[in-house]
Amino acid sequence: MFHKPEMMDALSDYASARYVIFGVPFDGTSSYRSGSRWAPDAMRKASANFETYNAYFDVDYEDLMIHDAGNLEHYSTVDQTLEELTLAVEPIVADGKIPIMLGGEHSLTLPCVKACARYSDEKIGFVVLDAHFDLREEYGGVKYNHACVSKHVLNEVTDRYVTIGVRSGPKEEWVFARENNIRYYTPDDVRKKGIRKVLEEIIDYLGCSKIYLSLDMDALDPAYAPGLGTPEPFGLSDIEVREVIHRLAPMCVGFDIVEIAPEYDNGQSALLGTKLLREFIAAHAASERQH
Amino acid sequence: MFHKPEMMDALSDYASARYVIFGVPFDGTSSYRSGSRWAPDAMRKASANFETYNAYFDVDYEDLMIHDAGNLEHYSTVDQTLEELTLAVEPIVADGKIPIMLGGEHSLTLPCVKACARYSDEKIGFVVLDAHFDLREEYGGVKYNHACVSKHVLNEVTDRYVTIGVRSGPKEEWVFARENNIRYYTPDDVRKKGIRKVLEEIIDYLGCSKIYLSLDMDALDPAYAPGLGTPEPFGLSDIEVREVIHRLAPMCVGFDIVEIAPEYDNGQSALLGTKLLREFIAAHAASERQH
Amino acid sequence: MFHKPEMMDALSDYASARYVIFGVPFDGTSSYRSGSRWAPDAMRKASANFETYNAYFDVDYEDLMIHDAGNLEHYSTVDQTLEELTLAVEPIVADGKIPIMLGGEHSLTLPCVKACARYSDEKIGFVVLDAHFDLREEYGGVKYNHACVSKHVLNEVTDRYVTIGVRSGPKEEWVFARENNIRYYTPDDVRKKGIRKVLEEIIDYLGCSKIYLSLDMDALDPAYAPGLGTPEPFGLSDIEVREVIHRLAPMCVGFDIVEIAPEYDNGQSALLGTKLLREFIAAHAASERQH
Amino acid sequence: MFHKPEMMDALSDYASARYVIFGVPFDGTSSYRSGSRWAPDAMRKASANFETYNAYFDVDYEDLMIHDAGNLEHYSTVDQTLEELTLAVEPIVADGKIPIMLGGEHSLTLPCVKACARYSDEKIGFVVLDAHFDLREEYGGVKYNHACVSKHVLNEVTDRYVTIGVRSGPKEEWVFARENNIRYYTPDDVRKKGIRKVLEEIIDYLGCSKIYLSLDMDALDPAYAPGLGTPEPFGLSDIEVREVIHRLAPMCVGFDIVEIAPEYDNGQSALLGTKLLREFIAAHAASERQH
Amino acid sequence: MFHKPEMMDALSDYASARYVIFGVPFDGTSSYRSGSRWAPDAMRKASANFETYNAYFDVDYEDLMIHDAGNLEHYSTVDQTLEELTLAVEPIVADGKIPIMLGGEHSLTLPCVKACARYSDEKIGFVVLDAHFDLREEYGGVKYNHACVSKHVLNEVTDRYVTIGVRSGPKEEWVFARENNIRYYTPDDVRKKGIRKVLEEIIDYLGCSKIYLSLDMDALDPAYAPGLGTPEPFGLSDIEVREVIHRLAPMCVGFDIVEIAPEYDNGQSALLGTKLLREFIAAHAASERQH
Amino acid sequence: MFHKPEMMDALSDYASARYVIFGVPFDGTSSYRSGSRWAPDAMRKASANFETYNAYFDVDYEDLMIHDAGNLEHYSTVDQTLEELTLAVEPIVADGKIPIMLGGEHSLTLPCVKACARYSDEKIGFVVLDAHFDLREEYGGVKYNHACVSKHVLNEVTDRYVTIGVRSGPKEEWVFARENNIRYYTPDDVRKKGIRKVLEEIIDYLGCSKIYLSLDMDALDPAYAPGLGTPEPFGLSDIEVREVIHRLAPMCVGFDIVEIAPEYDNGQSALLGTKLLREFIAAHAASERQH
Ligand SMILES: [Mn+2]
Ligand SMILES: [Mn+2]
Ligand SMILES: [Mn+2]
Ligand SMILES: [Mn+2]
Ligand SMILES: [Mn+2]
Ligand SMILES: [Mn+2]
Ligand SMILES: [Mn+2]
Ligand SMILES: [Mn+2]
Ligand SMILES: [Mn+2]
Ligand SMILES: [Mn+2]
Ligand SMILES: [Mn+2]
Ligand SMILES: [Mn+2]
Repeated sequence: MFHKPEMMDALSDYASARYVIFGVPFDGTSSYRSGSRWAPDAMRKASANFETYNAYFDVDYEDLMIHDAGNLEHYSTVDQTLEELTLAVEPIVADGKIPIMLGGEHSLTLPCVKACARYSDEKIGFVVLDAHFDLREEYGGVKYNHACVSKHVLNEVTDRYVTIGVRSGPKEEWVFARENNIRYYTPDDVRKKGIRKVLEEIIDYLGCSKIYLSLDMDALDPAYAPGLGTPEPFGLSDIEVREVIHRLAPMCVGFDIVEIAPEYDNGQSALLGTKLLREFIAAHAASERQH
Repeated sequence: MFHKPEMMDALSDYASARYVIFGVPFDGTSSYRSGSRWAPDAMRKASANFETYNAYFDVDYEDLMIHDAGNLEHYSTVDQTLEELTLAVEPIVADGKIPIMLGGEHSLTLPCVKACARYSDEKIGFVVLDAHFDLREEYGGVKYNHACVSKHVLNEVTDRYVTIGVRSGPKEEWVFARENNIRYYTPDDVRKKGIRKVLEEIIDYLGCSKIYLSLDMDALDPAYAPGLGTPEPFGLSDIEVREVIHRLAPMCVGFDIVEIAPEYDNGQSALLGTKLLREFIAAHAASERQH
Repeated sequence: MFHKPEMMDALSDYASARYVIFGVPFDGTSSYRSGSRWAPDAMRKASANFETYNAYFDVDYEDLMIHDAGNLEHYSTVDQTLEELTLAVEPIVADGKIPIMLGGEHSLTLPCVKACARYSDEKIGFVVLDAHFDLREEYGGVKYNHACVSKHVLNEVTDRYVTIGVRSGPKEEWVFARENNIRYYTPDDVRKKGIRKVLEEIIDYLGCSKIYLSLDMDALDPAYAPGLGTPEPFGLSDIEVREVIHRLAPMCVGFDIVEIAPEYDNGQSALLGTKLLREFIAAHAASERQH
Repeated sequence: MFHKPEMMDALSDYASARYVIFGVPFDGTSSYRSGSRWAPDAMRKASANFETYNAYFDVDYEDLMIHDAGNLEHYSTVDQTLEELTLAVEPIVADGKIPIMLGGEHSLTLPCVKACARYSDEKIGFVVLDAHFDLREEYGGVKYNHACVSKHVLNEVTDRYVTIGVRSGPKEEWVFARENNIRYYTPDDVRKKGIRKVLEEIIDYLGCSKIYLSLDMDALDPAYAPGLGTPEPFGLSDIEVREVIHRLAPMCVGFDIVEIAPEYDNGQSALLGTKLLREFIAAHAASERQH
Repeated sequence: MFHKPEMMDALSDYASARYVIFGVPFDGTSSYRSGSRWAPDAMRKASANFETYNAYFDVDYEDLMIHDAGNLEHYSTVDQTLEELTLAVEPIVADGKIPIMLGGEHSLTLPCVKACARYSDEKIGFVVLDAHFDLREEYGGVKYNHACVSKHVLNEVTDRYVTIGVRSGPKEEWVFARENNIRYYTPDDVRKKGIRKVLEEIIDYLGCSKIYLSLDMDALDPAYAPGLGTPEPFGLSDIEVREVIHRLAPMCVGFDIVEIAPEYDNGQSALLGTKLLREFIAAHAASERQH
Repeated sequence: MFHKPEMMDALSDYASARYVIFGVPFDGTSSYRSGSRWAPDAMRKASANFETYNAYFDVDYEDLMIHDAGNLEHYSTVDQTLEELTLAVEPIVADGKIPIMLGGEHSLTLPCVKACARYSDEKIGFVVLDAHFDLREEYGGVKYNHACVSKHVLNEVTDRYVTIGVRSGPKEEWVFARENNIRYYTPDDVRKKGIRKVLEEIIDYLGCSKIYLSLDMDALDPAYAPGLGTPEPFGLSDIEVREVIHRLAPMCVGFDIVEIAPEYDNGQSALLGTKLLREFIAAHAASERQH
């Protein structure tokens, strides 16, 4: 009769869950516009807009084991937040569940990838959709700034790394990427090759069966997602990002959506982010059904 | 010297009018976000942004016989609203004019289609642009909910029915559609086949010369129309919808635009809806000129 | 570590709770602007802005037994919503707890007052803060419209009825109020007499020790609460309303805050409403401590 | 059945009307924020929020003869706008009706005052509520700038002039006011003396039985009216302005409300402006009834 | 340590500058929505969102000689504004620098083109991206209205004129364009031919090596730029406009971006406009580097 | 001809300046809503709304020596920001000028007070207008959190400390205040005693001739300033705060306005803050003139 303001269709308790959704309302290192702290609850609100059924995968979300764990407590510093997030996400992975993190800023991805890597029986790949390289060692004296997350994954977790949608970064990042044979695809690359071809190249390149997928929403063009911390024109289309999720979700051991800043639009970005989250779950669940 | 806040270029009185525009500011059954009650006046405001001339059809709106009848009174329940709307729209059709209804929510389409069907000398077709099937028998105990309008048209008016842009619905609707050979085109279908091919298939399938066209604005992708009651990602483009209108308007005996919720953007959706309204009128008028 | 997006300081489970907060996201009969469906979650979001301590009453909310039951399911019609709300609120009152309802629209007050009256050992009073009389028998053919709630309380629950802040209504309501000796105080009355004098008159007039207090936020001047369904200028000040709550809370067996429409400001009304909710709880708890 | 988007309760045709409301959507000389061009339609929209009855004066607006003439056509320059407005307002006054102009910017007041003066059998007074003196001869090379309207009334119409709420102006205006014995009341003066005392002084000072009242909404404090072109802190309260209108309306031969910029709030200023418009009409109508 | 709120990376003083950016916060002739007066500062704010490096051209903006001269003083009439702008822009061109004007409305382009033409050793071309023809001789009695700028350039500066993105205008403008062999490309033309083919045709047609490029942001589809004075559906994509800038910038002796109205979105249009400004500078600088 | 987007009337260069205004766009420790990073530029934009003359003090701002130094660079951590701010503000004080800091968050006040204390020949007082005590030793592990600024001033600078407007804090702060004889005035105290009486008590209590005044805008009621990081109902009125500034400015050696979050209203808070800034300067300048 009463229900908590949770993600729609997250009807499972933790114990039975296959997918554990949780929010991390932290945006303390945001450089341009902050506000991704409000994204997890905005996405819960957005979820009520959608039907429970995904026709493409013939999946009804109500039949899946989805748990919404709520939000991580708010901590004042990025260091403490990452520490607490590590403690929070590890048990989820240890319990064999798929963690789905709703940021908050991109720095929050690191503990999630790490946890997934630790409990994987093989080296995992890391695929990130992002307008930015996020390959700095530190930014403004802050190591775990949101502009550095990919570098730390590279350093601390895995070198099976691909980024899609990248179109912005200081010269150092572009040089670093080229000199270190970082595999990246700009939106122009995607438009030229087609996203399906790109995805086949990526799977080939990674050569692994398990990946962590991180969706920094600014990978998308601001026409589709104007409510962001650092919107960057000339981005990916909604369909291209959906294609990435459809193709890679079956390989995923973890997933996140970060950097939505809901104060900067009227629900548009949170609605699209939530829809993409649902596409991820449906694609993943459909693949497990087939086995 | 003074002028009423009417739709621009609606210079005709009722008696001389070929096109009778009227608003129905009702959104009482809206399930997610309400606010389409404000759409008719928002579209009148938007109309002042546009030029009086349509170059594609070489039509000047000031030369056409367009009448803006104003808004239907506000009634508290959907049942009474539909009843009063029936009384209001029937004389317009009976007088041989083209009714153009500005919603308000999608449930308002039913009395308009009915009126058009009643005064037609042949069975009319019903083409609806919508992200949703709207094929429920009832929703939440309310028969004439906005989520059921297509079902009621099927039941009560005509089975010459096609829906374009559909991408959302409970499993029951998808199953019903397939089992009853409902002709529908998702945006992915449209992207694959091309909208022109789709339109030829539709005209062929319907096999009639008169149709009623209903534009639920959520058929469009939220990038083009973010101010909606139930925005659904991965939708049709503005150009695809314009193509539908250009092709079908000449066959139309009635038209409506529904589900714009102007409080959720800064005019973007009302401006596009109003532009599409003008494309409809120009396309229809150009076709009559040719005869 | 994780926490649900609940009202801050609502740390108690249902069984131990003294105060049970619940939201009812329904605004289906709203006549001018709708949107109070979003108020319960907006108030939860607002609650994080406040400290856990109320210095005036020397009360720490964390020490109180407050439970947030979540939101009532959404039903499509006012009749069904009131029916389900009745089923939901009765057990709370039966269990000896104080129900605190967050609307949604004002029609939702009726089942709450009724439940409180049913389980009271004496006839309760009903005090309502409102810009409007809400004394119509029905509105637009809808009996349980939000513009009729006080009439139904009068008819069905109690004639110990006072309204504060009223300044708007059709002539019939003003005549009815006068002819039936309805005790009402306009904001002008309050400004002239002073709110403390008014409150003593009210307590005297009611002659009962138990009341239900309903706060239609439009009692307040729009300078304090611009985000409302039907904002009415020349209203009560924040301090006057706080005074009412401080004085009457100790006598209250139930409380609600209704008619906030959060889409029409940037948090201002939800923040004030939430603050007044907290003043209610502190005032009530302080009075129980003293016994 | 259908109704035009007019001011609520404006049920009279022109011929029978006692009050003729018209909008002038012009803001071409606005110096800081423009947007008052949208105010007339925003006020029409706001009017639907209010009841038809004014209890203070026991007046039902539906019983009065109110006509909404619509909006003046849009002209590109202030000079042409004033010229056309002159042509539009003169017949209204000549026909013995009360013109009520909804701006648009303050420069539009001049032709209205002039028309009222021309058709008056005695020299009329001019009372203006404004945060600004508007006593410049010209501003930026534009004679009929909105910052000059009071000077032109002084020069061209009447020296029976009082301004209330003034608190902003270049030194020259303050000096001019003092040296020319301009009667002005700052909000601090009003707070000290009380608005009733101020009003008696004004009536005494003017020594005439007919006045034109102009309400530049920035006379009000931005807490009550944030949606303005040039908001100025430390202003009049809603109650003080209402008091002015109640007291002076019976003497008025014309009235206007100008400088609301609706894009800068969520209806708050248009709602208050519309309410004050209704207070004006009720106060005026009640006084005529008494004769 | 302190820095002025200037365009990011505008590190050069005037004397050393190759690119001189300046704002003109004037929108006095805006016909539908005004507000482009706020665009220059909104673009400065937006610039902080971007990286200093352009990877496509391998250009670091910090290495370029970019000067931000600030904003032109505000003048009340378009005539005086154009006069003062003429005085302001001429020295910039005379000093051999590239003027980059941030409007403000489109009428401001004329003095900039004129100045560039005057100091060119050959007849320059004028390429304008715009949804509108802007080919009226005057609009509403105002010669230098923003709807007339292209006509005045044709009359007073150069007949080497091409417009891209045009899709709106009164019949007279379309007829004038056809009868005078004006070279124009609608967005539909661009979609059909491809923007690269269009650009080759244009360069061929103009037959000159120096052009002035004016970007009226309404050339873009409102999905990419909703915050405009006169948004027009069915426009150019962000990529198409970027392509125009990349191709033509090397030939440019002047550039402007006009008609952004930042109050009508949450930064989306100012961010895209600023990004396109940066693409212009990088493309131009890269071409000079190659010589 | 061109002018930088500076604070209006800040016509002086640094060397000649008596008042040095600078912004610090940092909000990294904001706990509820962030966004005060945008306040300095929002206040510059707001300043253009006001006249250059202050009639109460007969002061023309253009005659004063006001310098706008721009904004401090953005640093990522509060520690580095405070360090750099110390380096930036010290020379201003050392040069005998009055520093006026525009936050950003309240933590930024500390280096400013410190600098003023260091260069004062007597122990200075610290008067802060704030809804919150800000008396925590640290918050969330962050010493220099914005919720701790008053404690650090007490610890590190001066015990001549008074806070006005306080109405929110954890129990510990209220206990600490009482046990340490902290002098504080709640808005209720101010309403009871009158602000003038309160100010005489404060001056008496402090017993010093030099003070630093810090205005956390949340001291004001949200009706006057809704755009804040942590808005708290039941606050001070605009007039009360103006009174504080008028009375204390002559004693001030430094001043700041912090915690405005401009994204949460349409200019209302930035306009009021800027007006209060101008009242400060006028009051201070008038007092110096008198000597
Ligand atoms: Mn990222
Ligand atoms: Mn990114
Ligand atoms: Mn529909
Ligand atoms: Mn739909
Ligand atoms: Mn009510
Ligand atoms: Mn009410
Ligand atoms: Mn004025
Ligand atoms: Mn004014
Ligand atoms: Mn143009
Ligand atoms: Mn244009
Ligand atoms: Mn503080
Ligand atoms: Mn504070």
